[in-house]
Amino acid sequence: MELWYTEKQTKNHGITTKIKRTLYHDQSEFQTLDVIETAEFGNMLVLDGMVMTTDRDEFVYHEMITHVAMNTHPDPKEVLVVGGGDGGVIREILRYPSVTRAVLAEIDKKVIEASKTYFPQIAGKLDDPRVDVQVTDGIRHIAENKGRYDVIIVDSTEPVGPAVGLFQKPFYEGIYEALKDDGIMVAQTESPWFNRDLIRQVYRDISNTFPVARLYTASIPTYPSGLWSFTIGSKKYDPLHVNEAELSKFDTRYYRPEMHKALFELPAFVQELLTDEVK
Amino acid sequence: MELWYTEKQTKNHGITTKIKRTLYHDQSEFQTLDVIETAEFGNMLVLDGMVMTTDRDEFVYHEMITHVAMNTHPDPKEVLVVGGGDGGVIREILRYPSVTRAVLAEIDKKVIEASKTYFPQIAGKLDDPRVDVQVTDGIRHIAENKGRYDVIIVDSTEPVGPAVGLFQKPFYEGIYEALKDDGIMVAQTESPWFNRDLIRQVYRDISNTFPVARLYTASIPTYPSGLWSFTIGSKKYDPLHVNEAELSKFDTRYYRPEMHKALFELPAFVQELLTDEVK
Repeated sequence: MELWYTEKQTKNHGITTKIKRTLYHDQSEFQTLDVIETAEFGNMLVLDGMVMTTDRDEFVYHEMITHVAMNTHPDPKEVLVVGGGDGGVIREILRYPSVTRAVLAEIDKKVIEASKTYFPQIAGKLDDPRVDVQVTDGIRHIAENKGRYDVIIVDSTEPVGPAVGLFQKPFYEGIYEALKDDGIMVAQTESPWFNRDLIRQVYRDISNTFPVARLYTASIPTYPSGLWSFTIGSKKYDPLHVNEAELSKFDTRYYRPEMHKALFELPAFVQELLTDEVK
Repeated sequence: MELWYTEKQTKNHGITTKIKRTLYHDQSEFQTLDVIETAEFGNMLVLDGMVMTTDRDEFVYHEMITHVAMNTHPDPKEVLVVGGGDGGVIREILRYPSVTRAVLAEIDKKVIEASKTYFPQIAGKLDDPRVDVQVTDGIRHIAENKGRYDVIIVDSTEPVGPAVGLFQKPFYEGIYEALKDDGIMVAQTESPWFNRDLIRQVYRDISNTFPVARLYTASIPTYPSGLWSFTIGSKKYDPLHVNEAELSKFDTRYYRPEMHKALFELPAFVQELLTDEVK
């Protein structure tokens, strides 16, 4: 008997992937959690029926949400991750020797526990001494830590359920307050194919909150449409004004310092989301 | 009753998409042809069970296989498309006023006929007076037209069935001979996630045939992994040496002249396919 996991990524379209077995199934107070072992992508974390990460392609999301902002800031010391309970963003943040403290504000401790058990390559750095794991509401954490962070990374789930507030303007305004005077933020902002209204709204909100707003994309096979967007808000540093030759280099599999500025040359159908003109 | 079309893009992974109805089903001497009306992507052309193009995302593939090479050549006049019976590449080629003749060498006339009927937005330019549609084997056409073309675009199906020969070194050598002394070619070369050995081989073959070889990618939701590669071979003009400010601009939805050079800043896991080092 062959078992296949099918995710309807929109009402009318999705992916289907062969599974070897279900490793974990649980229900927290926030969401349903599943870990399945797939034939193509290795272990796969699924929250409320949506793929969050897989062994095989996780490097794209975790590198790309992290390094563009981190490598734009010249000296990131205190960094906050909102969400991101799988630990992949923390792992990438710790590559920077300048980082003295990386705080994970994850609302659902079951995500952290399942990730440590089933995704050791992703979650393995959560016990690093520089990491402070806090099981808490990211919105509350931000309100309680004004002017504290150099970089804030919003690694949320989709804008349904517990993450709805993480896609709204008051949240970005709170992040602005929680950043130092030269701080920078980045958020995952969904698919340019399937979430166009959301991307327009978020980009507008971040543009109206921060002096610098930038959007870029990366290719993630297990995410809806295979193309994903990330939006940066920055108080001072512009990713387009870095000196690429001086950027930190790591043994990464997607991000390269040489692509840092090239990332912002968007396809026309994405670029048009950044203007208020209706096309 | 809901009908869904599922394509196994690898043995263990695929896409599934809701269909409204089947518009066309036929068998040619070369392949099975289907056109289905989908809820998410509009009409979808499927050859031998593999998605070739859809109304909604066709612009990515057709623009991106065409404009990088065409806009690198300073004055493309005679252009050949091998395969491409849906007419989308021809449509993009005709945007260039310099083009005097665009030849389509498609082996399967049923692809051309079905595209004219079910994809008028894609195939609508096949009757343009500058277009010469030839139902023929592209390999033979190339052998019979030495030194003739400014640009050759290989818009093939997957490397199974009728298209196997289009991924082999003798074919690229034939293209070299069919190009003028300053000619340039480009071929679709599959997914950097699922066809890594093929891309390595094709890049090596084209590098060994042409003085300039370059690879770039584009995001196509209905193609395996959502990320697709294209490989250029050029006798003279290097896409990295264009003056972007002088490139032709069109009302395109993906390609922008401003991304022309940025396209070649590849993700690390793609970049590594271009070296012979084993990683």
